[in-house]
Amino acid sequence: MVAECRETRARAGLLHTPHGTVETPVFMPVGTQATVKGLTARDLAEDLDVRILLANTYHLYLRPGPDLIREMGGLHRFMSWPNAILTDSGGYQVFSLSGLRKITDDGVRFQSHLNGDSHTFTPESTVDAQLAFGSDILMALDECPEYPASHEYARESMRRTLRWARQAAEHHRRRLQESPTRHALFPIVQGSMYRDLRRECAAALLDLDADGYAIGGLSVGEPRPLSMEMVEASEDILPRSRPRYAMGVGMPAELPEYVARGVDMMDCVLPTRNARNGCLFTSQGRVVIKHARYRDDPRPLDETCQCYTCRKYSRAYLRHLFQAGEILYAVLATRHNIQRYLDIMREIRHAIISNRYPEYLRTVRLASSDAA
Amino acid sequence: MVAECRETRARAGLLHTPHGTVETPVFMPVGTQATVKGLTARDLAEDLDVRILLANTYHLYLRPGPDLIREMGGLHRFMSWPNAILTDSGGYQVFSLSGLRKITDDGVRFQSHLNGDSHTFTPESTVDAQLAFGSDILMALDECPEYPASHEYARESMRRTLRWARQAAEHHRRRLQESPTRHALFPIVQGSMYRDLRRECAAALLDLDADGYAIGGLSVGEPRPLSMEMVEASEDILPRSRPRYAMGVGMPAELPEYVARGVDMMDCVLPTRNARNGCLFTSQGRVVIKHARYRDDPRPLDETCQCYTCRKYSRAYLRHLFQAGEILYAVLATRHNIQRYLDIMREIRHAIISNRYPEYLRTVRLASSDAA
Repeated sequence: MVAECRETRARAGLLHTPHGTVETPVFMPVGTQATVKGLTARDLAEDLDVRILLANTYHLYLRPGPDLIREMGGLHRFMSWPNAILTDSGGYQVFSLSGLRKITDDGVRFQSHLNGDSHTFTPESTVDAQLAFGSDILMALDECPEYPASHEYARESMRRTLRWARQAAEHHRRRLQESPTRHALFPIVQGSMYRDLRRECAAALLDLDADGYAIGGLSVGEPRPLSMEMVEASEDILPRSRPRYAMGVGMPAELPEYVARGVDMMDCVLPTRNARNGCLFTSQGRVVIKHARYRDDPRPLDETCQCYTCRKYSRAYLRHLFQAGEILYAVLATRHNIQRYLDIMREIRHAIISNRYPEYLRTVRLASSDAA
Repeated sequence: MVAECRETRARAGLLHTPHGTVETPVFMPVGTQATVKGLTARDLAEDLDVRILLANTYHLYLRPGPDLIREMGGLHRFMSWPNAILTDSGGYQVFSLSGLRKITDDGVRFQSHLNGDSHTFTPESTVDAQLAFGSDILMALDECPEYPASHEYARESMRRTLRWARQAAEHHRRRLQESPTRHALFPIVQGSMYRDLRRECAAALLDLDADGYAIGGLSVGEPRPLSMEMVEASEDILPRSRPRYAMGVGMPAELPEYVARGVDMMDCVLPTRNARNGCLFTSQGRVVIKHARYRDDPRPLDETCQCYTCRKYSRAYLRHLFQAGEILYAVLATRHNIQRYLDIMREIRHAIISNRYPEYLRTVRLASSDAA
């Protein structure tokens, strides 16, 4: 731990991985299919200074497959990525993307969204897949229930996730005895939107003495105050000495809120997906680039931003590229939105370390309510 | 002129533009809509060392329009491009892309392929559009007849192109008296696949004392020996002291052939379009990246290539990106194919200057017949 806020639960720390040390709180860009869409490793590592990114086990398991990735020297080498990689467990994508799926106590059987082939994920097999990738941080298989879920179903599901987490941890321990490299495994707190289930889950996971803990099952359609409440319910149980990762969040204005609730790590497709869809985040709010008002706007997207896009190109040019369906639009927009997210995280960390996080939080809340 | 081959018509020279000096023979990547698809200005200017690129007047005239581009400070500033730009006349695209079109002696009336709106290009209006773009090298409006064309139609069409070239030159002269900047204007030799018409056209264009001369109407479906013959027919009439530009060519193996026939400048969508379609050019021949044989191929596309793609990524990774439909595939493939074209041009220029172009030509012809 580098610094802690005295009023909120915000912390600044360092996360050590086999591929470098990561300053926390951190936002991890999403590189679903072994690529952050449109960006080279150099764009990400050198220009944007991304220290950790997330890749999706479900997608990479289906294509190109863990065996090929291992054969090619692991995911870092395959995608020419020098810094850390966290892979998810595949659970969330099985529940959101695949067709027919059947959950048993052993795991989940599902059909590939690519070709309909049947596959099974077990707590053990997803650890093996992630070890084949050579991820720095692995996630344990979890079930991510739909929202809303009944208390009864949510409890049953959470307890299954808990059993899976124990199996994954056991299997991971055995595998690491065979291999010298250090790969962390995080179990995932579930429990739908029930405070008691979240607390039961978090408390039970402590037994695993894990390298870090994730809070999953958020951003599944619930109102945002409820997501925050679920983080609060879990967080104060989790050990202070370990990183906490809120999965799949959030909007720019939400990042400081999660951090204020003790979250150290976040990931989300928003900055990258929204970029491609024409929604750009700036220090002055959102820019929907297709709007006619940007047609002849010679200003950069964000005058205070130091990204390549803002240093070199105008809103008018970006709008032209967007309207023309040009690939370069996606490339430039993605660069900018990631820069914006990382800038927010740098502001957050700096505010925590300089002991003025509560003040920072008030300022961003005010700006965000003005914008709304 | 820097050097001339003693046996062939190949020459090495320098082309001076308001945006830098360009070593010739040169290949110009195509940036149709004010972007070489997928690449930033930095990728092109700094990594690939592109000194001149081509943009399409037809596309930019329709979207975003010459007025907007002028208002944004011209095409260089709009697309953040520091080096030279050549724009075509729009003629070729009117004939290949637009719907209904009607040629009169005054110009050509056509419907936009974007929304069906009617527009007219005249020799004067396309000069004005290109001046609004601020192109370093403008092309005079020409008619590009389909192949095959009757001798009668080809003659009529060529003479119209000739009249248009005179009108464009006259208009360009008047405009340059109003504006201090130096923008070159090249007229275009036409004449379909008739040697006598090509010679008549080239000879008549000499009167214009133009900054350079283009040879158009190639790559319209004719057999390749015929294209070469048409270049030969025109070239020995054109002044030695001016650059000659063969429009819309060619395949990698054809580049040295055009140069051997006295061509100094070329452009083609092949390296960029083929890249996106999965066809990559290497020093060892073509790589069709979707082939299963590349699935687990850890080698770079081309072991002798110094491009970013070849220095950082394997064929297996590129194939994965291609199969997954990832944007990064187009970005990396385009970088490589442009590098390959520019490497060939550097080899060509070096061979001319070091007085061994005939030997170089024999070697590449042999390699190309082996590959075929």
